[in-house]
Amino acid sequence: MKLTKAQQQEIKDLKSQENKTKRVIAPELEKILFDAIPILDHGFVRVIDYMGDDTSIVQAARVSYGKGTKKVSTDSGLIKYLMRHWHSTPFEMCEIKYHIKLPIFIARQWIRHRTANVNEYSARYSVLDKEFYLPSQENLAVQSKNNRQGRGEIISGEQAKEVLKLLKTDAERTYDNYETMLNERYDGSVIDEKKSGLARELARMNLTLNTYTQWYWKTDLLNLMNFLRLRADSHAQYEIRAYADVMLDTLKKWVPITYEAFMDYRVGGTEVSSKGKFVIRQLLEGKDTNLEESGLSKREWNELMSAFDLKKKIVE
Amino acid sequence: MKLTKAQQQEIKDLKSQENKTKRVIAPELEKILFDAIPILDHGFVRVIDYMGDDTSIVQAARVSYGKGTKKVSTDSGLIKYLMRHWHSTPFEMCEIKYHIKLPIFIARQWIRHRTANVNEYSARYSVLDKEFYLPSQENLAVQSKNNRQGRGEIISGEQAKEVLKLLKTDAERTYDNYETMLNERYDGSVIDEKKSGLARELARMNLTLNTYTQWYWKTDLLNLMNFLRLRADSHAQYEIRAYADVMLDTLKKWVPITYEAFMDYRVGGTEVSSKGKFVIRQLLEGKDTNLEESGLSKREWNELMSAFDLKKKIVE
Amino acid sequence: MKLTKAQQQEIKDLKSQENKTKRVIAPELEKILFDAIPILDHGFVRVIDYMGDDTSIVQAARVSYGKGTKKVSTDSGLIKYLMRHWHSTPFEMCEIKYHIKLPIFIARQWIRHRTANVNEYSARYSVLDKEFYLPSQENLAVQSKNNRQGRGEIISGEQAKEVLKLLKTDAERTYDNYETMLNERYDGSVIDEKKSGLARELARMNLTLNTYTQWYWKTDLLNLMNFLRLRADSHAQYEIRAYADVMLDTLKKWVPITYEAFMDYRVGGTEVSSKGKFVIRQLLEGKDTNLEESGLSKREWNELMSAFDLKKKIVE
Amino acid sequence: MKLTKAQQQEIKDLKSQENKTKRVIAPELEKILFDAIPILDHGFVRVIDYMGDDTSIVQAARVSYGKGTKKVSTDSGLIKYLMRHWHSTPFEMCEIKYHIKLPIFIARQWIRHRTANVNEYSARYSVLDKEFYLPSQENLAVQSKNNRQGRGEIISGEQAKEVLKLLKTDAERTYDNYETMLNERYDGSVIDEKKSGLARELARMNLTLNTYTQWYWKTDLLNLMNFLRLRADSHAQYEIRAYADVMLDTLKKWVPITYEAFMDYRVGGTEVSSKGKFVIRQLLEGKDTNLEESGLSKREWNELMSAFDLKKKIVE
Repeated sequence: MKLTKAQQQEIKDLKSQENKTKRVIAPELEKILFDAIPILDHGFVRVIDYMGDDTSIVQAARVSYGKGTKKVSTDSGLIKYLMRHWHSTPFEMCEIKYHIKLPIFIARQWIRHRTANVNEYSARYSVLDKEFYLPSQENLAVQSKNNRQGRGEIISGEQAKEVLKLLKTDAERTYDNYETMLNERYDGSVIDEKKSGLARELARMNLTLNTYTQWYWKTDLLNLMNFLRLRADSHAQYEIRAYADVMLDTLKKWVPITYEAFMDYRVGGTEVSSKGKFVIRQLLEGKDTNLEESGLSKREWNELMSAFDLKKKIVE
Repeated sequence: MKLTKAQQQEIKDLKSQENKTKRVIAPELEKILFDAIPILDHGFVRVIDYMGDDTSIVQAARVSYGKGTKKVSTDSGLIKYLMRHWHSTPFEMCEIKYHIKLPIFIARQWIRHRTANVNEYSARYSVLDKEFYLPSQENLAVQSKNNRQGRGEIISGEQAKEVLKLLKTDAERTYDNYETMLNERYDGSVIDEKKSGLARELARMNLTLNTYTQWYWKTDLLNLMNFLRLRADSHAQYEIRAYADVMLDTLKKWVPITYEAFMDYRVGGTEVSSKGKFVIRQLLEGKDTNLEESGLSKREWNELMSAFDLKKKIVE
Repeated sequence: MKLTKAQQQEIKDLKSQENKTKRVIAPELEKILFDAIPILDHGFVRVIDYMGDDTSIVQAARVSYGKGTKKVSTDSGLIKYLMRHWHSTPFEMCEIKYHIKLPIFIARQWIRHRTANVNEYSARYSVLDKEFYLPSQENLAVQSKNNRQGRGEIISGEQAKEVLKLLKTDAERTYDNYETMLNERYDGSVIDEKKSGLARELARMNLTLNTYTQWYWKTDLLNLMNFLRLRADSHAQYEIRAYADVMLDTLKKWVPITYEAFMDYRVGGTEVSSKGKFVIRQLLEGKDTNLEESGLSKREWNELMSAFDLKKKIVE
Repeated sequence: MKLTKAQQQEIKDLKSQENKTKRVIAPELEKILFDAIPILDHGFVRVIDYMGDDTSIVQAARVSYGKGTKKVSTDSGLIKYLMRHWHSTPFEMCEIKYHIKLPIFIARQWIRHRTANVNEYSARYSVLDKEFYLPSQENLAVQSKNNRQGRGEIISGEQAKEVLKLLKTDAERTYDNYETMLNERYDGSVIDEKKSGLARELARMNLTLNTYTQWYWKTDLLNLMNFLRLRADSHAQYEIRAYADVMLDTLKKWVPITYEAFMDYRVGGTEVSSKGKFVIRQLLEGKDTNLEESGLSKREWNELMSAFDLKKKIVE
């Protein structure tokens, strides 16, 4: 991530603001407001604005005139209750806005979360930065054998070098040709004064999917947690998880009580199907049971065993 | 609108807060934050929280690192451009939250705007306040003859008195019987210590639709304007318009530049259909035209004439 | 539920249609299409239209050119997989539309599910039917002591009679006065030819919340299941559960494979928090544990015990 | 657009279905159901399923028991009224589902319409087809001088040849290297049996943005019209307009009455701001007016003049 001097100065100016407000504030989040937290090789996450804190959830659940309760313990009990029973509307009463720089192929995954507001940098209007994502070597892996949409073992040695070289060379060449077609360099300089460049909305099609884009992304607390539950999960693609992990930390700074309940009930919790409940009950009663009797698929059986640390996994 | 002493104190406490923030603030809106602005006989609108100001729209449209432009004139030009061309996403980057007290039959209209977050006071959980909407006499009107969902002439004299008496008597009696069934008064006192009251979720069904309810209602700037365009319009029912008019004023205090563009392009503007354009073109060329030639319905013709102050109305 | 002869004939006409289509059909659902299935004393649910069946989910998940797989077993395996891993978009590819008659206080709960399309019968435009919900005696219950938004013991004897009498008398009187103010009877007849009635949008405020309304309600399969998971649950108010139960049956007729997966993973399943997993693991290892050690609240503990049929409940 | 024999057969099989249904059907749309209508060089639009027709809008607006009105003229009048007054919910009662093949850079524009359901072909799971969009020469244009997000004059001669050559060469090379990294050809054949290929979720990042993807896209009639209003407009990028134009035709086959109202009030209509109304009024009264007096910007002035065929354009 390379910020220009002008960008660094803009961030510094924003951080030096000190405004007075009657609204609630989140002190820990204020400290990192506007900072560009680096992710992957050129990406970042910046918290740009927010509305509400833990007490706003309590206040909304109670439709209260004032701040709700004064005691943190009461607030905490209510927030846990709301989380456990999947109450959704009180968590929608807080809002957060991020500025994010990310590779296009990750942006395409991300945008599938529809309940958010997005303004993306327009490549019809402007020239994209000359930055593309190149995985570090420990993140290069072969196609998984048993999970059709996942990674298997790490690639190393010659094959790793070759992959990285191909990715780098192709990204650079297609970007160079993007500039040639535009008749304009990424820094704004014109290549050939006698020529008119191809329209930006066309030239951009030559870029590869690891080119970085950026956007403003705003969502409410409920939908942020829905996003994080899926994207900070071990089944998520590594590159989007890298963003989700950093955003989990901003969640903690923003609404610490909600964060704890989220980790307990969502991230650390598990779901057990009707058939899965039968298996656990049998085992609790000291009876034996097995895959056939359970009606579960092998993969379901293994997921259940692993959720409860049971040593009865079956080879899939 | 009667606030209890405790409620008044809670509002006073909120207003006396002074927090420091690096976020942008809307100075005019800060001044009225938390105030209960009276509407109808017992309703109110309170602004509880907000996020962003006019510059946030510019910042998002540009996906900028800093505050966007420094010049108000540039901001204003861009905001007008965005409004004129129905750009939606930059306006979604600002958010506002209201606490509103309103009659149930208006709440039922209001809730049809789905793109908002709502927490309503629960009558399954609590006893509703003893407050019902009774129209002032100048707002009593007969069913309109030519608009099946509107009002006609004002009712006065004996008929007005009778209507108001019926509304008042029925609301009071059904509320009294609500208390009887609950075995509990609105102030929390128990009626008959030896009895258990009917479940709240059942007893509430006896209340009339002019009983007041309250909710927290949060929406983004785009959807707020969509709401106001429909509900501050002369075709809207008077009772919801009373709320929309007050909220228009909070819009002005919050985002004054956007407010101006909104008044020019949405509220004060008009739409002309393909057939309507033909009529205006004919008239501009000094040619005569008429209803038959236009292909418009009578009502459409009249709406067009009235939009351009033309004296060619036809009796419907 | 009283349908007029004209309404009965309209339904009969619709049912006698036989159109040819290349679209997929759901044979069991076709059989009950347009039928008014009675609910409560005057309500009903009618399936009006639908799009897709179980194979549409498979087809969308695969983005296939044809019908997807031919084998039901493969379809079933995929649907179960999608349900288990909370894949949402393939289930959004099926759509259903209902015509529903329901009491207003239930309509107010229902409408909180925002991701649906709704057209409600307009009381600004038309006169509402003279029908109100009166609970049958076995559904009258006192306010629950330990659940602030639930029912406790059944009410019987004199108190029950009194409640029912109050509900009936108030509903009838307020409706009578609604007619008086409108100067029009529910059957369209005018009361006093010399008078103009009060505007409908005003008169309606005199009705009680158990008055029946009706609407067209359309949603996709995913959101229908979200609705049913919450509203067919034992914590839901009885009156809305009565609708959800009937709709569960239409789900089964429409998409039988999805229905089964839904019952196994959602309705019959349970969620276990991080702390709850610790308790179950302890018990599976034959160790003892208790409330204090678990960090759970009493209610959480009891919910966990009851999910796994364990006899360790604690008095709350 | 090259469909494989297997795909052609699947489409043929679907088209040969003849099911009986009690639902309404759209006869003209049935005729083209499942057909792949070619767009650009390799793209297509296929209508896969639909729900409702023009009468469904009427039926929902009336919350009727039967089919609504029998007379087409009444239906038409009501639909025009609903369109003119921006009634939204009745149009949401119809639903349509498309299968679309399109270049990724267009998919990224398209997905910004959030109120639709989407299942995209997964490049984490499968290998993308070897197809990329190459503009035909008449669609190559330079960057517009006065519209920062548009095209200006057509490019021809040597520059055109060079652009097309760059686009083709880069797309082919990056695709070849995609196969190399995957160790798998687009037809499924393995390149080197001794090697494991790079995970698909990683390899895809090497593809250029003109690579074709495909998805199932489902939306309701209201949101389809919102999409078409923006994307069949002359300001839309040519490549997405090509899709919107074909979809406009499917709209006509599906709901012909709604289509006509849409063309009159939305596509062929115009909006006039408060200031714009002043200008038109002045001209209608035979008075002169000018840019300064109007308070309009140059561009606004010109847009107004052009909407009413007035010869008073000003050089921007």
